Amino acid sequence: MPDILPSYVQGSWWTPSDETDAAIVRDASTGEVVARVSTKGLDLAAALDYARTVGQRSLGTLTFHQRAMLLKEFALALTARKQELYELSKRAGSTVRDSRSDVDGGIGVLFTYSSKGRRELPNSKVYVDGPVEPLSKDGSFLGQHVYTRLPGVAVQINAFNFPMWGALEKFAPAFLAGVPSLVKPATPTGYVAEAWVRILVETGRLPEGALQLVSGSVPTLFEHLRLGDLVGFTGSGSTAERLRQHDSVQTGGVRFTSETDSINASVLGPDVAPGSPGFDAYVKQLLVELTTKAGQKCTAIRRAIVPEGVVDALVDALRTKIDERVVIGDPHAESVTMGPVVSIEQRDEVLRQVVALEAAGGGILLGSTAAPDVVRADGTRGPAPEGAFITPMLVGFADAATPAAHDIEAFGPVSSVLTYSTLAEAADLVGRGGGSLVTSVATDDPDVAVELMTRMGSFNGRVLFLSRENARTSTGHGSPVPHLVHGGPGRAGGGEELGGIRAVLHHMQRTAIQGSPEMLTALTGVWHAGAAVQNGRHPFRKSLAELALGDQVVSASREVTLDDIEVFARFTGDTFYAHMDEDAAAANPFFPGRVAHGYLLVSWAAGLFVDPEPGPVLANYGLENLRFITPVSPGDTIRVTLTAKQITPRETDEYGEVRWDAVILNQNDEIVATYDVLTLVAKEPTRV
Amino acid sequence: MPDILPSYVQGSWWTPSDETDAAIVRDASTGEVVARVSTKGLDLAAALDYARTVGQRSLGTLTFHQRAMLLKEFALALTARKQELYELSKRAGSTVRDSRSDVDGGIGVLFTYSSKGRRELPNSKVYVDGPVEPLSKDGSFLGQHVYTRLPGVAVQINAFNFPMWGALEKFAPAFLAGVPSLVKPATPTGYVAEAWVRILVETGRLPEGALQLVSGSVPTLFEHLRLGDLVGFTGSGSTAERLRQHDSVQTGGVRFTSETDSINASVLGPDVAPGSPGFDAYVKQLLVELTTKAGQKCTAIRRAIVPEGVVDALVDALRTKIDERVVIGDPHAESVTMGPVVSIEQRDEVLRQVVALEAAGGGILLGSTAAPDVVRADGTRGPAPEGAFITPMLVGFADAATPAAHDIEAFGPVSSVLTYSTLAEAADLVGRGGGSLVTSVATDDPDVAVELMTRMGSFNGRVLFLSRENARTSTGHGSPVPHLVHGGPGRAGGGEELGGIRAVLHHMQRTAIQGSPEMLTALTGVWHAGAAVQNGRHPFRKSLAELALGDQVVSASREVTLDDIEVFARFTGDTFYAHMDEDAAAANPFFPGRVAHGYLLVSWAAGLFVDPEPGPVLANYGLENLRFITPVSPGDTIRVTLTAKQITPRETDEYGEVRWDAVILNQNDEIVATYDVLTLVAKEPTRV
Repeated sequence: MPDILPSYVQGSWWTPSDETDAAIVRDASTGEVVARVSTKGLDLAAALDYARTVGQRSLGTLTFHQRAMLLKEFALALTARKQELYELSKRAGSTVRDSRSDVDGGIGVLFTYSSKGRRELPNSKVYVDGPVEPLSKDGSFLGQHVYTRLPGVAVQINAFNFPMWGALEKFAPAFLAGVPSLVKPATPTGYVAEAWVRILVETGRLPEGALQLVSGSVPTLFEHLRLGDLVGFTGSGSTAERLRQHDSVQTGGVRFTSETDSINASVLGPDVAPGSPGFDAYVKQLLVELTTKAGQKCTAIRRAIVPEGVVDALVDALRTKIDERVVIGDPHAESVTMGPVVSIEQRDEVLRQVVALEAAGGGILLGSTAAPDVVRADGTRGPAPEGAFITPMLVGFADAATPAAHDIEAFGPVSSVLTYSTLAEAADLVGRGGGSLVTSVATDDPDVAVELMTRMGSFNGRVLFLSRENARTSTGHGSPVPHLVHGGPGRAGGGEELGGIRAVLHHMQRTAIQGSPEMLTALTGVWHAGAAVQNGRHPFRKSLAELALGDQVVSASREVTLDDIEVFARFTGDTFYAHMDEDAAAANPFFPGRVAHGYLLVSWAAGLFVDPEPGPVLANYGLENLRFITPVSPGDTIRVTLTAKQITPRETDEYGEVRWDAVILNQNDEIVATYDVLTLVAKEPTRV
Repeated sequence: MPDILPSYVQGSWWTPSDETDAAIVRDASTGEVVARVSTKGLDLAAALDYARTVGQRSLGTLTFHQRAMLLKEFALALTARKQELYELSKRAGSTVRDSRSDVDGGIGVLFTYSSKGRRELPNSKVYVDGPVEPLSKDGSFLGQHVYTRLPGVAVQINAFNFPMWGALEKFAPAFLAGVPSLVKPATPTGYVAEAWVRILVETGRLPEGALQLVSGSVPTLFEHLRLGDLVGFTGSGSTAERLRQHDSVQTGGVRFTSETDSINASVLGPDVAPGSPGFDAYVKQLLVELTTKAGQKCTAIRRAIVPEGVVDALVDALRTKIDERVVIGDPHAESVTMGPVVSIEQRDEVLRQVVALEAAGGGILLGSTAAPDVVRADGTRGPAPEGAFITPMLVGFADAATPAAHDIEAFGPVSSVLTYSTLAEAADLVGRGGGSLVTSVATDDPDVAVELMTRMGSFNGRVLFLSRENARTSTGHGSPVPHLVHGGPGRAGGGEELGGIRAVLHHMQRTAIQGSPEMLTALTGVWHAGAAVQNGRHPFRKSLAELALGDQVVSASREVTLDDIEVFARFTGDTFYAHMDEDAAAANPFFPGRVAHGYLLVSWAAGLFVDPEPGPVLANYGLENLRFITPVSPGDTIRVTLTAKQITPRETDEYGEVRWDAVILNQNDEIVATYDVLTLVAKEPTRV
């Protein structure tokens, strides 16, 4: 009998002293016992409190960038031990190709969040959302939105099909936000979750309390949750419904995000004829979705929606591909390309749903509910009665509107085939799924794409348009990518995960703050016009160690002459009439007559504010939000004010970014132009 | 007996044929009958379907800017008839000052959304969220997030206290999103809602089905709702709880946003001493929140949290101000500054909660539960037994942690006073409210602000910092502004309203789209690099009527010499060493040696792409997202590609904005710089 699977709580590994009632987990292909699971005697309330106190404290000492750096370390540690995870996953029925989406997919999420965290978040702890809103005429009262982390624990309840990706796609954004995680894997694949958690623990780099694992059931969980906690749930709609109805969610303010299996559709556009490359791409995608993870993906294609008259061509094309490419069996055998579903119970459940589809009028067009002969671990071929094997199946419906086709989910290698005659009908069929994680559309016609999107876009969390340009480069109907939101309305659970920094913000509270420029500067770490400034030593002479928000240079004034404008026009070749022709310029609705080039003004401004000698300021790497407000005529003089607005030291370099607020004024103190100058500045006074 | 209050459904005014069981609404000051209300026989399902079909269709023909223009027309129509609305509101107990927040506040929301809609949304129907995400190395597969409007109806269930502002703050963003509204006012002030709806109907400018009003109760409402609909609820937490638990929300995918009364706090910072201007501002704000709308605001201050030892000073200062400024009575009398609560029932409810606070250990420090003498409509002073009058009250607690003080809401002119000794304690007290719409903090010390915000920010939808700079300009603790989010976690309902465009997006579905540059261009109306381009006539010669996405100019090449760099340095004064000193430049980590100024490159690029003669392109008004990627050394040549990326015609001008994608390349086809050029372009070929 294998040991009981441990939990990792309050900073150490824990196993129950009483092993009675432990659940037994079996190998999906052979039925051998892989692990036993129990939480009997585990003090869940103490684990949650540990997260809220110790975990919050340790994560709270780190900035977004420091957390992001740790995510990269975790990703590297998992990469180094990928083979272990592949091997373990085979016991759950995953081929190595399946593990690419789970193991490599999970590692990829960590890398992406590490990279996005450093590129898209400030190196501090508060995230500023949107522009400042002036709320008084004199500038003394401003509004701004900020996100601060939730003060509780992120409880992550995961599904059995992706014990690694599904867990890490929740853990990574929680960690980046600074919210401790308590991971609750699904029992059938909890041993894979235990493995990745162990690898992370063994790095010795997990901040105390930032990650806990509960191997086994948590029936009292919701009683212990409270305002400031959040739950990310992936699994069946009925479980989500039951959990969501707990008082702690309904009235206690616990955030609940759910991502449930949906009846996703894949539409073949009317412009894509059988035999064309687009048709081939559509069929290949359907094959991938039927066979990867044996169809156990909440994003898999459950409904193939195709024009009338192409069903036979579709079935033939898919059959050919299955014959060519699909070898069902134990993933331990090298030739196998499609494994079993996770358990005998799950197999029986899938077959029950197929029977229900048939009872509702469906006819099996391809495959069968009979147990297939398979390739065993030792390479021999034959029946495997203890294995949870199912063949890929297509179920056809004469009436595409049959409710069962849009409602029953066989969570395995099973898709329904439905036909449409108009795009409106196709869109209507998609909508009948009641909200989906993803719909894909195979078309080369932008008009088809626009019409379908307009009619059914809002029923989907993601819509993939497969066309000839990306038949080879598409990341696939069933593959959420960390950059894009994963989740969908209605039946898909109504939640949102991933989507880059969006998922980090789901772990934070957006709060509108109102106050003086001084207060908003202190609260956001971004200098606001009107807050204190320091006009001493030229700020270009200051390293990041010395530079402070509000450090400012006010330049001398310089007169712009008609000759300057002409010199600049000749030098740059920019002889736009507004600079060169008095009458034509005066006829333009925005100019009083000939005016200076905008680029002349910003070029001169740089000349006015720059401190030219070598020093900590290394480079001007960009410029943002430039707006020309008041035209400059010959005879006007300009000056510029440059103020340190945001300072972002890098964790891994000897320099960081400094954003400067630049304002060009004329002799009447009118604003000529405003913009942000972006520079790289050394951390220390010594040269880099 | 006044006529029964009509509803406005399916494009016409409706009253019940059977008036039995109609609810009776009385004047808050006199008890006279103002209106009767009933929905007996109203076909709610038909009204909802009308919105989903006719309303969706008519709003769907309009762009964001066209809808925004209509909001302005509505605002102007209401402004013209403001006096009527003031007069009507007096019957509900609102003084003219109260009406400034309700009537003028509501009109202000329309103006703000009209303006923000035109400035911050494209003049089209799809909203693009965030940058494009490259998902394949060759650029053939991209990701992007878009928002499309929900396909259903926005049901707006409003509270009695703000029959106009509270309704319009939901209607404006729904309308802008293109989602039809069904407004359900609270019965006690439904006659004010009927009045503003009538004014909007009488403009003749409401798109068919865009706005319906149901005067009276809607007990079967939730049975008729479905995926694609959303409900915005304002009212009591217990009603929100009951509504939220309906199947249509729990499993049917109906979005439910609630904004409920919360136990908001106002913290007096330890640095603000009695007698100081900051203290005076704190007391004034407390007075405003107690007396405006007779304290019937979900954002009012329910807990004054002050340092130990200042309670007496606070009570004295507030008493003095009340004596000086507060005249309770019928708002029809000119001298009155504070009206009754909305009804006798509401008065009795408030007094019951005060008794409950007393029972929990609270002691009344100011005011009393006795009915006050008041100024009647005719100016005489005396008792008004039929009026719902209450005096402002402060209730003190010896133990600040008394649960009742953080849990019981007396929805009238009542605040508790609680004391703290440390900032951690003050923050803890704020958090005990279980989630609030707003907390205000009076302090001049940024450290106090930061510490409190860090500890309690995430419990609040809004935090206002009142300091000496903005004592006069603050928009006030209890006043949501349309620019900032209104709503809060936990007890505050967990929802979010307003916040500028954020509220528009709450009426839309965010969907990740994946596809080729061509498809994404068609779906978003924004040209994506890699999509088709047209290289014919110079695009600067095309008006908006002729210009198409992808219209492009590819410039000639131009060599950059050392002499050019020196000429530019002398002309601009920008003699930064990276341009002037070979050895120092080479020692910089980013440069191979002397390099051209970034501003030289963008100035030359303008010279290379510009078409100088007068034409439809009127001005370059700005530039965005400039990044310098590869340095340019003497001897390098540059060229620039400029492509029409987004076209935004204005509704009210003869021109619009065109955003151009600019890419500067060197002789090796390396990207030197990328940016967006912003121009104003005439709609027609003729000069503006």
